[in-house]
Amino acid sequence: MNFNELSKKRVSCRAYDSTKEVLKADLIEILKLATYAPSACNSQPWKFIACDNEVAKKIPQLIIREDLKINHWTVDVPCFVVVCETKVTLMKSLNEASQQKYAQMDIGSAMTSLCLAACDKGISSCIIGVFDEPKLKELLCIPDDVVIRAVIALGYAKNDNTANKIRKPDEEAFSFNKW
Amino acid sequence: MNFNELSKKRVSCRAYDSTKEVLKADLIEILKLATYAPSACNSQPWKFIACDNEVAKKIPQLIIREDLKINHWTVDVPCFVVVCETKVTLMKSLNEASQQKYAQMDIGSAMTSLCLAACDKGISSCIIGVFDEPKLKELLCIPDDVVIRAVIALGYAKNDNTANKIRKPDEEAFSFNKW
Repeated sequence: MNFNELSKKRVSCRAYDSTKEVLKADLIEILKLATYAPSACNSQPWKFIACDNEVAKKIPQLIIREDLKINHWTVDVPCFVVVCETKVTLMKSLNEASQQKYAQMDIGSAMTSLCLAACDKGISSCIIGVFDEPKLKELLCIPDDVVIRAVIALGYAKNDNTANKIRKPDEEAFSFNKW
Repeated sequence: MNFNELSKKRVSCRAYDSTKEVLKADLIEILKLATYAPSACNSQPWKFIACDNEVAKKIPQLIIREDLKINHWTVDVPCFVVVCETKVTLMKSLNEASQQKYAQMDIGSAMTSLCLAACDKGISSCIIGVFDEPKLKELLCIPDDVVIRAVIALGYAKNDNTANKIRKPDEEAFSFNKW
């Protein structure tokens, strides 16, 4: 699949086949490709914790928000990747621009690479931005100084997972030589 | 090129052939594919301003840092994409997690998609995180409430642009079922 097809095929999937696991070999390749993403000064401010089997079963309760009626579909997800931001040191000139959260941009970069790598193998994904961070850290023995930025659901889609991507008009998304 | 090859081929290029322009048709396709990146609540908090020809020639002076001796190679870059973060409204549950800069993660996501889309066409790229934001905003008539997050150099590599990507050991980058 070329990148044009791949980037259009990757959609956020919220209905998984709970009977179909993600093979460990596929998972390792997906994680490795995520690490090829670019990062500020090649700082690689990430660690991915892949959770499957019994550990994966404990994660939905830390993601489902009854009050908001969201994320109930995660009970069918066979594998989660918990995306952690680790402390890194950047060159001085980057630290000057304090408003820029380079590490968070880098995390976004790696997460997208991870989801594209999964999609290339027919594995669906969804990046989840709401979770019980203290309990997730406890469950996975994550050090205090590490921040969890997202949890990615991985698995096989229950249904045909082709959706039309709704995107804002091109003229709002890009322009040439001025705003 | 499949995603495995593509993600390994994409490297940050810092030596461009100044005589070879990026075709407008390629540029448009690259920008469109960047917009297929995932974003929190599909908020798409981005606008890309592609700069070529006379405008591109004015950008190196806003990126080169004589004091740090960096980015002099940008004088040979035929095209820049200025990546802007736009104001968006997210669902309430995401706003709660104030520490998370969803928009910056989304920008990182879209920038990586952009660089991969370029690489798939044989076009090299480099994400630049240091720039004179006020002057760039003035040059491109960017509104006050918009933040520039990065400038991406695009063009054809002067030399064979295959580099070994230096990455931290796998055991620091990912693990299974616990930290």
